[in-house]
Amino acid sequence: MLTLSARRCVLSQRKSPLNSTRGHCDTAPPDVLDRVRTLLQLCADRYYISPGESNSELFRRGWSCSYGPLGVELRRNLLQQWWHSVTGSRAWVFGVNTVSSSPDREAGGARVIESERFQQILDQAELSREQLIQKLNRLLLSSPSVRTSLLQGALEQFAPSLEMVNKKLPFGLAESGLCFQPSDGSGCSAEVTQTSLVWFCSPRSSSQWLDHWARHRLKWWRKFALSPSDFSSTEVPENELEEKTSRGVKILYKFPWGLESLETLGCRGDAELLQTYKGIRTKLQTRDGRKSIPHVVSVSGNMDRGAMAFLSNSLQQLRTEDGKKRLQQRKVLKLHPVLAPVKVALDIGKGATVELRQVCEGLLQEFLEAKISAWPGYLEAVPTSLELLNAKYDEMGVLFTVVIGEKTLESGLLQVRSRDTTVRETMHISEIRNFLSKYISAADKF
Amino acid sequence: MLTLSARRCVLSQRKSPLNSTRGHCDTAPPDVLDRVRTLLQLCADRYYISPGESNSELFRRGWSCSYGPLGVELRRNLLQQWWHSVTGSRAWVFGVNTVSSSPDREAGGARVIESERFQQILDQAELSREQLIQKLNRLLLSSPSVRTSLLQGALEQFAPSLEMVNKKLPFGLAESGLCFQPSDGSGCSAEVTQTSLVWFCSPRSSSQWLDHWARHRLKWWRKFALSPSDFSSTEVPENELEEKTSRGVKILYKFPWGLESLETLGCRGDAELLQTYKGIRTKLQTRDGRKSIPHVVSVSGNMDRGAMAFLSNSLQQLRTEDGKKRLQQRKVLKLHPVLAPVKVALDIGKGATVELRQVCEGLLQEFLEAKISAWPGYLEAVPTSLELLNAKYDEMGVLFTVVIGEKTLESGLLQVRSRDTTVRETMHISEIRNFLSKYISAADKF
Repeated sequence: MLTLSARRCVLSQRKSPLNSTRGHCDTAPPDVLDRVRTLLQLCADRYYISPGESNSELFRRGWSCSYGPLGVELRRNLLQQWWHSVTGSRAWVFGVNTVSSSPDREAGGARVIESERFQQILDQAELSREQLIQKLNRLLLSSPSVRTSLLQGALEQFAPSLEMVNKKLPFGLAESGLCFQPSDGSGCSAEVTQTSLVWFCSPRSSSQWLDHWARHRLKWWRKFALSPSDFSSTEVPENELEEKTSRGVKILYKFPWGLESLETLGCRGDAELLQTYKGIRTKLQTRDGRKSIPHVVSVSGNMDRGAMAFLSNSLQQLRTEDGKKRLQQRKVLKLHPVLAPVKVALDIGKGATVELRQVCEGLLQEFLEAKISAWPGYLEAVPTSLELLNAKYDEMGVLFTVVIGEKTLESGLLQVRSRDTTVRETMHISEIRNFLSKYISAADKF
Repeated sequence: MLTLSARRCVLSQRKSPLNSTRGHCDTAPPDVLDRVRTLLQLCADRYYISPGESNSELFRRGWSCSYGPLGVELRRNLLQQWWHSVTGSRAWVFGVNTVSSSPDREAGGARVIESERFQQILDQAELSREQLIQKLNRLLLSSPSVRTSLLQGALEQFAPSLEMVNKKLPFGLAESGLCFQPSDGSGCSAEVTQTSLVWFCSPRSSSQWLDHWARHRLKWWRKFALSPSDFSSTEVPENELEEKTSRGVKILYKFPWGLESLETLGCRGDAELLQTYKGIRTKLQTRDGRKSIPHVVSVSGNMDRGAMAFLSNSLQQLRTEDGKKRLQQRKVLKLHPVLAPVKVALDIGKGATVELRQVCEGLLQEFLEAKISAWPGYLEAVPTSLELLNAKYDEMGVLFTVVIGEKTLESGLLQVRSRDTTVRETMHISEIRNFLSKYISAADKF
């Protein structure tokens, strides 16, 4: 349940910059600000997002930002899992793709306007004030408007899809893609990578389907979590429901600064379908014998915020003592094996550098062919201690670190260190690929 | 080589609608129009693109359009293959993600403008003509501009990436995403799913790297082709080079209506990097000892047109005789096994429908778990002849059709038909999943 204080926190959070989150959430522990800063710093240092304050702020708000290579891979993995889970969950869920801007979709919202044509009109000195306004209005209305969600596109795909499913309900249309959020006036782009499942079903079953998908989605989020209880679902109170929605459920994540919504589900009735097809009921009729129009259940997620939720969820901070009994803080990004952007890092120990690098090159190729994403640490020239190296890879969330040393050249044996257990094992070079493949696919199935 | 007549054809093609392609290309056979119509009709009938003339036209122009489930899956497969081939080809190619609109990227081009704010300014009756123009200009300049390519984003990621690669050249940044084409004034959205590899290397090696990547890319396109010779590469003539580009290569595909460019490669020197970093050379210095600024080799592809190229390339029209010796035309979409959106269709033959469907359900789940994309044909109630069914699946490009019949209930044996050989084999139900997995992964490696 979204408690009142938590709801206040979400609301205040939307307007307030990072520095003012402390104090707003009465449920938040005093070290909130530290935890947020640590998370954002780690994400920038370890190639999840590009450095820079304004980029971190986009990221924290749950918007699409400049991602570094690890962030890109994390979001790719997440989107891929979502796609498989939604299109693979039922026989009749189909993927669609609609264009992000369209000439006649919405009257309001944002539009893509050609600067040159705009400028040309402003430059026409012979135009009176009224003529100028008229021309500009025409330009505005003829410019394509950008989508704020994937719902409308899916509704437009309903009729063409009916034939494919032999006019039978229920069925669903899935899509992921970029959507534009209404600007906050800062000139700051607000793009979000949304996922959408639009489910068409009979009117009497729509509430049950809402429950079905809410359970399905919460289970999915929790599957990849280190602390599953940070993900929750809540019924949207009646007075907070969107227009045209008779029931709603939200999947929430407990960020250090409060609860935020990752996915929104709603029973939307038939009004929007009818509106899309200009009330022509014959276009919407299905085979179920009755004359009723299908009802729509929408499931809409924000995968930029989703990626951030898993980063936040998987960051563990452990206090350990080093060799000289000094207290140190170890940060580990314990991302789920399926989501972790780098599965294995390859490094060299002491020994003949040229030969060791050749072994690494060969092993890297093997990993790439098996589609195991690998980090070529052996290319970094800066000599670093194994301790520092492990700390770095732990912060990157690298599942395993392989060190190739003199022994490997002699006997084919190498050292494999696990992120989660910190245990070092000795393994033969011929076994490592299979070991990793099996580890990852076992984690996918649990 | 792009011959003169072919080039004329590409140019004329850009302006002319579908109906006027005939006659423009002196190299085109007389049945060009038929072949184009057949291709577009098949794509709409078989769920690759949504029906409708304007949507077909977007598709034919090589722009992003409304895709049906098979088109979505085809483009997904294509993008995935591109990603693996580029990021997996070298140790130092990293994926990045940049935002599609940014407040200060380009002066010209298109911008995302909030309709409401625009309208508010127009409605202010107290403003003089000059004040109005001033306010509108300010709104225009403060609105984020949308990207037309992924290059600028990658250049901005150069400096943050330098540390990651230990300041060593060469390295590359890969990205795929939506870009907006300058509008043709129709109010028609022109979005393209672009792929981009921006390769940073030493000035003296850039021409060799261009050759390397041109070979790499052509080989990649041909890998998935039925007729590899329809894909070609050509050096861009000096007088057609883009500004700031000293050498260029294009990967072309021979569509029925003429040659079109799928991917463009160029040696772009260091001017754009310097411009992006406002001439601050210290930000761009690498470890190679010299004081030179890295040179940029760009590789930019259009994956919407790429998907269409593979559809066009794989459509085979065969004349066959039916049982009554009537001449019939069989259309088969011989998409590469890795690209084919549906690997297997599941249908039922004669027998107890309820039991047969249960077997299908079980098998479908097995396929989905193994990430083998399957088509639940057994859910379609309309009884159809096996011949019509095969014709439909051939047009969809489905690799194998599995028919579950009475025999399956008795002995576990089922019929598997191959799209490419049209041969029917009997197989035990326990073997089918492994058979398909092996078939697909073998095709991936050839």
